[in-house]
Amino acid sequence: MQSERQDEDSLVRRIAAKFRLSASARAGNVTLGIGDDAALWKATPGLETILTCDWFLEDLHFLKGLHPADSVGWKCLARAVSDIAAMGGVPRCFLLSLALPETHTGRWLDEFLDGLRAASRKLKCVLAGGDTTRHEKILINVTVIGEIETKRAALRSGARKGDWICVSGQLGGAQAGLELLLQQKGARKGDVGLDKHLYPVPRVELGRRLVKERLVTAMMDLSDGLSTDLKRLCEASGVGARIEEWRLPLAKAFPGFKGGVAERIRAALHGGDDYELLFTVPKSKARHLKREIAGAPVTIIGEIQSGRRILLLKQNGREQSLESGGWDPFRHVKRRF
Amino acid sequence: MQSERQDEDSLVRRIAAKFRLSASARAGNVTLGIGDDAALWKATPGLETILTCDWFLEDLHFLKGLHPADSVGWKCLARAVSDIAAMGGVPRCFLLSLALPETHTGRWLDEFLDGLRAASRKLKCVLAGGDTTRHEKILINVTVIGEIETKRAALRSGARKGDWICVSGQLGGAQAGLELLLQQKGARKGDVGLDKHLYPVPRVELGRRLVKERLVTAMMDLSDGLSTDLKRLCEASGVGARIEEWRLPLAKAFPGFKGGVAERIRAALHGGDDYELLFTVPKSKARHLKREIAGAPVTIIGEIQSGRRILLLKQNGREQSLESGGWDPFRHVKRRF
Repeated sequence: MQSERQDEDSLVRRIAAKFRLSASARAGNVTLGIGDDAALWKATPGLETILTCDWFLEDLHFLKGLHPADSVGWKCLARAVSDIAAMGGVPRCFLLSLALPETHTGRWLDEFLDGLRAASRKLKCVLAGGDTTRHEKILINVTVIGEIETKRAALRSGARKGDWICVSGQLGGAQAGLELLLQQKGARKGDVGLDKHLYPVPRVELGRRLVKERLVTAMMDLSDGLSTDLKRLCEASGVGARIEEWRLPLAKAFPGFKGGVAERIRAALHGGDDYELLFTVPKSKARHLKREIAGAPVTIIGEIQSGRRILLLKQNGREQSLESGGWDPFRHVKRRF
Repeated sequence: MQSERQDEDSLVRRIAAKFRLSASARAGNVTLGIGDDAALWKATPGLETILTCDWFLEDLHFLKGLHPADSVGWKCLARAVSDIAAMGGVPRCFLLSLALPETHTGRWLDEFLDGLRAASRKLKCVLAGGDTTRHEKILINVTVIGEIETKRAALRSGARKGDWICVSGQLGGAQAGLELLLQQKGARKGDVGLDKHLYPVPRVELGRRLVKERLVTAMMDLSDGLSTDLKRLCEASGVGARIEEWRLPLAKAFPGFKGGVAERIRAALHGGDDYELLFTVPKSKARHLKREIAGAPVTIIGEIQSGRRILLLKQNGREQSLESGGWDPFRHVKRRF
């Protein structure tokens, strides 16, 4: 009988086999990968290192019975890399902390690692190391290491009165995809509209360009919904904001999504998991702001104001306070899975 | 009513208040701390970055009803820093991922943060950022960033036939402390013998000195017990080993610990959580090996051999195979707490 620790060692070997230190690893500047007490990495001279970590927990961030294992693998890395994009940085490498029930060390683990490896390649972010253990629930924590030119990182705190408030892509698509997934009780081959929820692609190239061209005063990624995240950006900057409802770039309706325009607006304002960028641009630089940058649509949705209030100007001309949605998509469905 | 996300923000503020970016943070080269999408850190030119992460989970690594909250805070950082010590590096900063039940966001959290802060100061390792969320169990993951002179990190893979096998400090003390804690069902003021289990101090200074003086061919820290960890070092190096039982530096007996010599030997061979260093020294350099280095006792306990077997030479002159203990201290007591 294998001891628990020997099980762990065999788990580490299986992960290492899927992620061999290759040309890609050397590109990430990882000089020692999986298998020792720690990993070694070489920072690029003159750049600052970006450090971020992200929980991805069963029943809180994903549902074992609903989300395909490869989506769990993809998304746990994609959402952590999104924090690097939000600073305007380049992802380099990551650490994977994984706790698994014994029942999930077979096929589930293989598919999880396939999704993780696909994201790792797509995002050019190499696995450097990690920690594994057994647990009755699936627990994931991902640390991503990125880099950015010194003193050029985009923070949440730089927004000033009069700046345009912008977002990338469309908003609410991940929420719509989740709702479809819940209706169907799972993903089916050929489903349209689920990718944004299952396999989000963080806006790394856009973040780079915005920072390199010095267009933004503040930036963050949209993980918990516009109403929650905009409040955070405004609090960090000590400002208020006014959003104009008709400017919101709503995610397209797709077959299976039953909501009308009101539901699409609600998803755009409060839905989480979009991993688009939210950023502010001084009006003086607005002429340099193209409608599409690095392949990402860019939309002005409102303006930074003095004071601390976050306002929503509705289509009917009325102004109301935009309350933080406090997104927790699984609150009502946890018991079902 | 606060939403879950607002709860999280208030948790982050409480952590930030305990760990203000101060002179110590600048010493850790953290240029942007808690509160943005990610943290920023500046690597020292010419050094390699060491990356490591470590789970510390309720019921697996600690028991909520048994371990004081400040010990949980101290130990989650100390054990991750021990991986930096094992490479011969200097800890710089860390990321804290914390998931808590709502019942533990009051006094428990305060005491946890006190212990974490004490370890952070003692080990000169500053809090740079992290991620918090709610969970029905206490989940902790710590990522530590350290540094070391380029190409000088001590790996597990360098041990060669004929090298002396050495350990720092005494072995089995953490196991003995745990047994006392279990007997007493908790810690009492003035207890002797519990510190090694509750507040381990990783051997950072010793690791530095051994690497700087180029004394070691391989090194790792003892987290899962000598019998398990020596096996890992030997596998990584492609060698075997012979340990001489009477050379083991046994942890002292203390009031309350009921075991005799046999139990102390067993704890030294198989007990986990000691966070001492295990390292190999070529015989040609043995004359530079002092009995005490950087305040840590150093003991030769055996010799690296060819082949793959790990042997234990007993006091009675018999040689036997040293089986990996597969340490899991709470296996039998989990249901009690």
